Amino acid sequence: MKNEINHEEAQASLRDGPFNTVTIVGVGLISGSFALALKEKQLAKHIIGVSKTDGTAQRALELGIIDETLPLKEAVQKSEFVYVAIPVNVTIPVVLEILDMINDKQIVADAGSTKFALSEAIKDHPMRKRFVSTHPMWGTEYSGPEAAVHGAFAGRACVICDVERSDENAAKILENIYRLLGMNIVFMDSENHDVHAAYVSHISHITSFALANTVLEKEKEEEAIFELSGGGFESTVRLAKSAASMWVPVFMQNKENVLDVLNEHITQLRKFKASLEKENVQFLTELIENANKIRKIIK
Amino acid sequence: MKNEINHEEAQASLRDGPFNTVTIVGVGLISGSFALALKEKQLAKHIIGVSKTDGTAQRALELGIIDETLPLKEAVQKSEFVYVAIPVNVTIPVVLEILDMINDKQIVADAGSTKFALSEAIKDHPMRKRFVSTHPMWGTEYSGPEAAVHGAFAGRACVICDVERSDENAAKILENIYRLLGMNIVFMDSENHDVHAAYVSHISHITSFALANTVLEKEKEEEAIFELSGGGFESTVRLAKSAASMWVPVFMQNKENVLDVLNEHITQLRKFKASLEKENVQFLTELIENANKIRKIIK
Repeated sequence: MKNEINHEEAQASLRDGPFNTVTIVGVGLISGSFALALKEKQLAKHIIGVSKTDGTAQRALELGIIDETLPLKEAVQKSEFVYVAIPVNVTIPVVLEILDMINDKQIVADAGSTKFALSEAIKDHPMRKRFVSTHPMWGTEYSGPEAAVHGAFAGRACVICDVERSDENAAKILENIYRLLGMNIVFMDSENHDVHAAYVSHISHITSFALANTVLEKEKEEEAIFELSGGGFESTVRLAKSAASMWVPVFMQNKENVLDVLNEHITQLRKFKASLEKENVQFLTELIENANKIRKIIK
Repeated sequence: MKNEINHEEAQASLRDGPFNTVTIVGVGLISGSFALALKEKQLAKHIIGVSKTDGTAQRALELGIIDETLPLKEAVQKSEFVYVAIPVNVTIPVVLEILDMINDKQIVADAGSTKFALSEAIKDHPMRKRFVSTHPMWGTEYSGPEAAVHGAFAGRACVICDVERSDENAAKILENIYRLLGMNIVFMDSENHDVHAAYVSHISHITSFALANTVLEKEKEEEAIFELSGGGFESTVRLAKSAASMWVPVFMQNKENVLDVLNEHITQLRKFKASLEKENVQFLTELIENANKIRKIIK
């Protein structure tokens, strides 16, 4: 599945030079970091930001993330490449709207955390082939243009979904951009993506939200949490700072897979509960030693 | 609860000079890092390591963590200060054995993650006042002498329990050592410590073990986990690498508090499950926005 980065090949496929104009739809953590990376790698000369809230676009301008802000239609008309990174529920209508506007030289891509619902929604659009479905698996618990950082994405996986539904040149350009950003490309169909994403991303967020709620519900002495929380607690609860506006649509779109994993997770927690209640040291030890097998997978 | 670090005052209370000889019982992550720190801060001239396994002590010698390895009795006889950092189930008999050996100038301390059972077990010992009950809230998911690191402990909390049961000079020396290591000292009774530790440490480990087991159970395509896992999954599952030999005794000793928090955690996860099953976007949003309040507490 994984290919090695070949910078020469990647550069060669972009030999027609950088994009003159790129639009990012949404000017937050992902799109902002992507815009910064395009500029750093000299892959875009001019970046237009589209945001439904003026204040956000203005902050992105001030932060130097975008060069200009325009309404969606004008921005798309001026751009060779449009990159959509907004909550996944609004991604579907916005991508459809953009596909209605573009010609067959323009390229559109998204960066959403769920892929199957989008894939289904756009599959019969006449411009489907100009769209590339991507999920760069990088993020932090922060949002908005202030959350955008230099050097994001490097060393992480980027999934490109349903690549056979995109024009080869459009898919290749996206692939090469992500490679130049230091990402490992993984090809997968949308349905499989959503299954795997439930395991390696979505359940971690639910666990973290639930852990925060557990502590906030039961531990009324907030000063004690603040003073005592060490690295372990902070790392497991870090994701609980993530925005509802992003994650509610992800969980809703990936409901079946997320529920499947969540049910298993509750079952696993109940095994810890049962082993403790019964003071079954052997079972408790087995549960932990089994969990330790994650060492093989996560370095 | 928290006091500011006063390095001058801390140094002054150690004005009789560093310890000539200190024994660490257990030569692993915590005791090894503590030994390295004592040497770095010039608080100990000679460090003896006691380990029930010869190979472990030998590795600690080779790594320069300890200067000598001896059986417990000989080590204690030679030492002004004995620091016990071993699994909490063996801490109790070992501390009792050490208290039986010492005179009223020697100092003993432990570093265990649970405090109440130990507190009860030693409370009537005639040498109880030479013992200081401490929990430096630092750790990693690794164990053994190879896991010991320079610069551990700094910036974290250290709980000193039941300080009124220790001789003032003994407690003050421990307090000042931890301050010189850069820790914030929090005083608490053992019972309260164990309640808070269940929230800010023990539940995070159970969640992480259970999450690892969930993924290992359901996600058979291990290559997919390996390739796709981003920062979110890694940070929530990191603790699942932690050793059963350390954590089983912690969970068993703190059983009531851990079960209390674990039950609440399962309840919170079931709320996510119910809101998803019913596609109740408003409830799901409320759950996440409530979790976001952890931002106030964890920076």
